[in-house]
Amino acid sequence: MTTRQLVQQIHKKKSFLCIGLDTDLDKIPKHLLQEEDPIFAFNKAIIDATHQLCVAYKPNIAFYEAYGIKGWGALQKTIAYLNEKYPEIFTIADAKRGDIGNTSTRYAKAFFEELGFDSLTIAPYMGRDSVEPFLAFKDKHTILLALTSNDGAFDFQTKIVNGTELYKNVLEVSRTYKNSENLMYVVGATKASYLADIRKIIPDSFLLVPGVGAQGGNLFEVCRYGMNANVGLLVNSSRGIIYASKGIDFDEAAAKNAKNLQQEMATELKNLLK
Amino acid sequence: MTTRQLVQQIHKKKSFLCIGLDTDLDKIPKHLLQEEDPIFAFNKAIIDATHQLCVAYKPNIAFYEAYGIKGWGALQKTIAYLNEKYPEIFTIADAKRGDIGNTSTRYAKAFFEELGFDSLTIAPYMGRDSVEPFLAFKDKHTILLALTSNDGAFDFQTKIVNGTELYKNVLEVSRTYKNSENLMYVVGATKASYLADIRKIIPDSFLLVPGVGAQGGNLFEVCRYGMNANVGLLVNSSRGIIYASKGIDFDEAAAKNAKNLQQEMATELKNLLK
Repeated sequence: MTTRQLVQQIHKKKSFLCIGLDTDLDKIPKHLLQEEDPIFAFNKAIIDATHQLCVAYKPNIAFYEAYGIKGWGALQKTIAYLNEKYPEIFTIADAKRGDIGNTSTRYAKAFFEELGFDSLTIAPYMGRDSVEPFLAFKDKHTILLALTSNDGAFDFQTKIVNGTELYKNVLEVSRTYKNSENLMYVVGATKASYLADIRKIIPDSFLLVPGVGAQGGNLFEVCRYGMNANVGLLVNSSRGIIYASKGIDFDEAAAKNAKNLQQEMATELKNLLK
Repeated sequence: MTTRQLVQQIHKKKSFLCIGLDTDLDKIPKHLLQEEDPIFAFNKAIIDATHQLCVAYKPNIAFYEAYGIKGWGALQKTIAYLNEKYPEIFTIADAKRGDIGNTSTRYAKAFFEELGFDSLTIAPYMGRDSVEPFLAFKDKHTILLALTSNDGAFDFQTKIVNGTELYKNVLEVSRTYKNSENLMYVVGATKASYLADIRKIIPDSFLLVPGVGAQGGNLFEVCRYGMNANVGLLVNSSRGIIYASKGIDFDEAAAKNAKNLQQEMATELKNLLK
């Protein structure tokens, strides 16, 4: 999917919501455990109930790997279902991968070609030759971890390097990578005011903002500091939507919570277009 | 496996060789492609031919994920075979994972418990709460990326933070993590002289050293600067061993190359014990 198509979808749906499919067998409604593939059954129901309210889905790959081959199968079915039934949806493999040269190419092929995701999250620590292999794929997007929303972000990401925080150095250096137009960035919403500085370095890039909701971010602040003329934001919510209810109404409850966020987003988009 | 058991194996086999199982269907001998599971067939033959010459095997997970469910199945069979037939072998999942809190716990369970690996490689960028969940597993080892052997290592790892290189800061900070005695570190062999500085910070930890062989490292230098009284080194070779021949003699050729490295290592161990 091109960035332009993504932006069109955002305006069409009046939403820049990404729903995190962190599907956990201990948390999904009990009645689904009788299904042949409970993970996929849950994902399918959530997707069917919410696809008009969001523009992206983001399975966190750890949740699938934890179940071995069964989990991998559920992931394959989920992305295949999305690509077939809702091809307008932007898909993110939240894998936080990062390895060198031809190993990166392996991961890129696995997620972009075999599975068919539009994008993949990547860790920056190993530098240029761990990121560029992903950037070589046309109309695929590499979402680089810049500033994450966890406490550990302060261990290294905010340390001063060359007179600036490491995460800003990551933004600056990554702009010099070949095909850097295929980069997006993960920026945690717990530090919304940081977004103003970030926008000085990468005014045009899309930002994937986790942590609005469960992790304490504030949508208004994120938009105030992070939105650009092209919207430039995907705001993620996982647990707050997919685990809204443990009953048989779980999909409706998810849709209700997604709708609340979508309506807030519609207001922000209206303000943007004024 | 405890560190003590690993050290015992090293002295018994007179080897601190780790063999990287970066199994690629385009590179394995053609005759294996007729097997039901060519990846596992290749790994099994390599393992059977080399297990007395090495103390560890390290599948790079990217190579398995690239083949989807089939690859995941081959990985499961490989680790199950190692654990059943050669339980004295130290096993490393080269996954370079890193995510927050309960997602890290998911990955830890997947690799330590479901698959049964002794250790896992981890990226440090997300800090404490992305690493500590792995360290909580008894007799399991978390191998943190410090200084990698690729060109991109100079993008961020060698940048100055708090008056020292970022990778040294990673070493220092990681020592304060809970259960840090379960940490080992990846240190690229292309900068063997850096090992002297590294040993000042982490004198006792085990180092996983990639890049001896194909990536240009030198075993003598690595031992000179990196070895400690407890040996403290696992030196990895992947392509130089497993792709020594494309013929039906591939396993014998692999054993021959492994033997050459093992003999060099025996000499280094003899010098250590003098």
